[in-house]
Amino acid sequence: MRASRYLIATLKETPADAEIISHQLMLRAGMIRKLAAGLYTWLPLGLRTLRKVERIVREEMDKSGAQEVLMPAVQPAELWQESGRWTQYGGELLRLNDRHGRDFCFGPTHEEVITDLIRNELKSYKELPANFYQIQTKFRDERRPRFGVMRAREFIMKDAYSFHLDAESLDETYQVMHRTYCNIFDRLGLDYRPVQADSGAIGGNASHEFHVLAASGEDAIAFSTESDYAANIEKAEALAPAGERPAPTEPLREVATPEQKTIGDISDFLGVAPRRTVKTLVVRGEAGTDGEAGLVALVLRGDHTLNTIKAEKLPGVAEPLTLATDEEIRNAIGCAPGSLGPVNLPVPVIVDRSAAHLADFICGANRDGYHLTGVNWERDVPLARVEDLRNVVEGDPSPDGKGTLEIRRGIEVGHIFKLGKKYSEAMNATVLDEHGKSVVMEMGCYGIGVSRIVAASIEQNHDDRGIIWPDAIAPFEVAIVTLNAHKSAAVAEAGEKLYEQLRQAGFDVLLDDRNERPGVKFADMELIGIPHRLVVSDRGLAAGTLEYKGRRDTDKQDIPLEDALSFLIKVSPRKGL
Amino acid sequence: MRASRYLIATLKETPADAEIISHQLMLRAGMIRKLAAGLYTWLPLGLRTLRKVERIVREEMDKSGAQEVLMPAVQPAELWQESGRWTQYGGELLRLNDRHGRDFCFGPTHEEVITDLIRNELKSYKELPANFYQIQTKFRDERRPRFGVMRAREFIMKDAYSFHLDAESLDETYQVMHRTYCNIFDRLGLDYRPVQADSGAIGGNASHEFHVLAASGEDAIAFSTESDYAANIEKAEALAPAGERPAPTEPLREVATPEQKTIGDISDFLGVAPRRTVKTLVVRGEAGTDGEAGLVALVLRGDHTLNTIKAEKLPGVAEPLTLATDEEIRNAIGCAPGSLGPVNLPVPVIVDRSAAHLADFICGANRDGYHLTGVNWERDVPLARVEDLRNVVEGDPSPDGKGTLEIRRGIEVGHIFKLGKKYSEAMNATVLDEHGKSVVMEMGCYGIGVSRIVAASIEQNHDDRGIIWPDAIAPFEVAIVTLNAHKSAAVAEAGEKLYEQLRQAGFDVLLDDRNERPGVKFADMELIGIPHRLVVSDRGLAAGTLEYKGRRDTDKQDIPLEDALSFLIKVSPRKGL
Repeated sequence: MRASRYLIATLKETPADAEIISHQLMLRAGMIRKLAAGLYTWLPLGLRTLRKVERIVREEMDKSGAQEVLMPAVQPAELWQESGRWTQYGGELLRLNDRHGRDFCFGPTHEEVITDLIRNELKSYKELPANFYQIQTKFRDERRPRFGVMRAREFIMKDAYSFHLDAESLDETYQVMHRTYCNIFDRLGLDYRPVQADSGAIGGNASHEFHVLAASGEDAIAFSTESDYAANIEKAEALAPAGERPAPTEPLREVATPEQKTIGDISDFLGVAPRRTVKTLVVRGEAGTDGEAGLVALVLRGDHTLNTIKAEKLPGVAEPLTLATDEEIRNAIGCAPGSLGPVNLPVPVIVDRSAAHLADFICGANRDGYHLTGVNWERDVPLARVEDLRNVVEGDPSPDGKGTLEIRRGIEVGHIFKLGKKYSEAMNATVLDEHGKSVVMEMGCYGIGVSRIVAASIEQNHDDRGIIWPDAIAPFEVAIVTLNAHKSAAVAEAGEKLYEQLRQAGFDVLLDDRNERPGVKFADMELIGIPHRLVVSDRGLAAGTLEYKGRRDTDKQDIPLEDALSFLIKVSPRKGL
Repeated sequence: MRASRYLIATLKETPADAEIISHQLMLRAGMIRKLAAGLYTWLPLGLRTLRKVERIVREEMDKSGAQEVLMPAVQPAELWQESGRWTQYGGELLRLNDRHGRDFCFGPTHEEVITDLIRNELKSYKELPANFYQIQTKFRDERRPRFGVMRAREFIMKDAYSFHLDAESLDETYQVMHRTYCNIFDRLGLDYRPVQADSGAIGGNASHEFHVLAASGEDAIAFSTESDYAANIEKAEALAPAGERPAPTEPLREVATPEQKTIGDISDFLGVAPRRTVKTLVVRGEAGTDGEAGLVALVLRGDHTLNTIKAEKLPGVAEPLTLATDEEIRNAIGCAPGSLGPVNLPVPVIVDRSAAHLADFICGANRDGYHLTGVNWERDVPLARVEDLRNVVEGDPSPDGKGTLEIRRGIEVGHIFKLGKKYSEAMNATVLDEHGKSVVMEMGCYGIGVSRIVAASIEQNHDDRGIIWPDAIAPFEVAIVTLNAHKSAAVAEAGEKLYEQLRQAGFDVLLDDRNERPGVKFADMELIGIPHRLVVSDRGLAAGTLEYKGRRDTDKQDIPLEDALSFLIKVSPRKGL
């Protein structure tokens, strides 16, 4: 492509409403433009990258044996009523009426449509397993769309749905999809982690998220230093420290701690680390048969934080998790929240595994202005119920027993999920098995946020000059920058010749033949993030050389003009050309 | 692709609600399935063809220098209010509200969005001309969607929009697009005609439609036997017969024609051809300054039909065209409509060019039960106003003076259009010219119905066994049918080997390895329309041969097994492989 005939719509200023780096750079590099909140036009340069992502996703899905289909964006309400989601799905479902007043939605996902299709098309177990995918425009009416295409309302998604006679077959395809997703993200040149998105309590590894690691990620991920274990931090299991609980060594004592309310206060005041203290949080219990909800105390080590998702799933705890008010606490226990502790507490107590491992610890005395030191489980206070209540922290043992946990931030770009019979049962999607018996099919679903991947890649690959594309999804792999080509016929000619040579070798090349100053051209090519840059100048031609600079390089280098192609083949990942 | 792992969803029965052959065959061949009225899912087989059409359109658009973008399907109402179309566009515009109650539509077209984009991005004449296109999902809320994807509500369209400093530049790009469209439809293997869609009265060739010729087409097209002239029949200019009007030879006579009311009646009764008679239609005139609308008579040759679009555009004629009632005619003229004629008619008369060329003709006497014979213009009745009032018919002289007109039916699959400043003026889309003056841009727009092309190709290419695909857009180019492969290891192996050989040579191959009877496989491959079929059988292998049959062939032929590839290269259009 010649830049002089191409929309290079770079911006010098960072648009004010772009909060994250990928949104800023996609606007500045001229990849996208905002049409309305959460609605973006892909300019030519951005679309080139989007299409390359699409192609890689499509090729790997095809390789996996999945079959591509294309379902309508607009879906009739009847199917969503059948599955029950017409009422369950919240404001993110864009509902609409056609000219005859009939209810439709702009699909955010296609479980209902594919299940309806397959229950009509497939009749026999012989046709299973089958996996169908599409790469298609979806709409999710986010209350507050932001971050550019990262959380747009209209977006492009690859969604796949598999159908099976039994759970074993679903598991096989699930594993195939797991491998396929790894292949896709490998080819996309992304640093990513497959993450257990399920607590593991029911159904085993029934769901994995694929996260691109990036400091700006919305999710925190815990993963093992020594195994493949990775889980969303909200879902990672927190183990107790290894070994037996130490034996008591100190006597129980009550100490005056006037005005000391927080764990930090107490640690400083008594000169002990927060990890030697416990905090006691009082929450609403589950309502009993009489409709009355009592209170429940949750006890954690002072340096740990409560995991509300884990806590509210526990029997006896109200969901959603609700902290008791100061007044409720005073009425029930007789002190302020800052002086709570498990000893002689008149409400049921649930103790976190790590807190349960402490000896000689410190806690509130359930009396304003006093704490207890040298507290020991069983000796001073019964240890009736121990549960996993907290968020994991760096250095925790990995739940799979291998290594310890590290914590990084991630952007979710893929999700694979065992749906089981949720939709097939609701919509009566059956086949006949080998005995002629009607069987409700098992289903899996597998999503990739195609447009989101473009932004996630930028979050992971950029510097202060702009985007740094992996070769596989760069809008152009090579930029040829001609200097003063409008004055030097030799430069213009050498640039054209090189352009043709590289194109014919299969490279995507942008010839920057614009009548702009060298600094402008260099800055634009770096902002756009083209991996390889070749500069053609009169000075270089006199010496028979070009100047080469990789986008991540700090130094330029001169290469012989006639070696340009072989040099590029060497430095680009397409060595097999 | 192996058919055993692919959704071959052929149907034996023709679905009852499919009215036209392409709709029937797309359902029967398992290309599409209906989700709701005007909403179709593309099954794997159909999508393959759709994607091939897309690819050809994209390649040729890229070659033309147009730049691909992707605009949102959902568009904010504000832009449509700016252009004025929010209120002008009828029920086909699918209007919707987001969760905050703001107005949007599911775009049926993107003039407003692209004009908004370009007025923000392009600032200088130096950036012009520029042409942007997308291949994208659109929605048109047809009152009565039908004919499958031919007139669906959700459909895929290639729409392009060009921007120019002046009309000359627009004209150049318009010509480039005209050539590009011809290239596209040539590559698609379609028999098509570019058709003047404009009357030619204002702005010259400001609009062309591209029609695929097919008996089921909704539009009638007139085209010259000897030139490129082609026009929608409603818009083709009807010329008078060549030469001077013949001189009168008969005297004017009134004859009794009791009970004879239609042109057919009169012709039979008097024994003359309808072309020697005239018919007189009385319609409403334009309302005068007093608000009173008088009547106007339109006179055509008896064998011609009125072109209402031409008639209602004439000064003095009410738009929309409205026939006078029998009562109005009797009050004004004193007879029934069947006895009308131009002689002594008390309302203004407009005479069609061909009717004006008659001598010694027959018409009603404006008296019930009587007609006039030997009528001659000027001698018996003044010829005050002559206009083009009628539809052209086969054999008419071509308006460009070259040859005569033929009439065929067509399906509109493309449209190129000079928009001029319609949108750029309404939305103030300007650039600075070379003198620094702000200039409103000229615009062109260029559409192709991508999904409709699939159906149009079938309308043009089918027989009683099914679809006949051109190689370029066939879902698979070659079908390998193995006979009894489940019993014969030799057949299964030879089939696999051939499959791999042809695939590696670049052919799209479907290996029909299903455990079905030969008759079922043959019928399916013919229904699906695969251009080339190779049969592997024990009998053939014993003789070292395969059986070949082209989809349009009546006879099969045996070819040596080892010549399969070279044979296919010879018979397929991909000779250059």
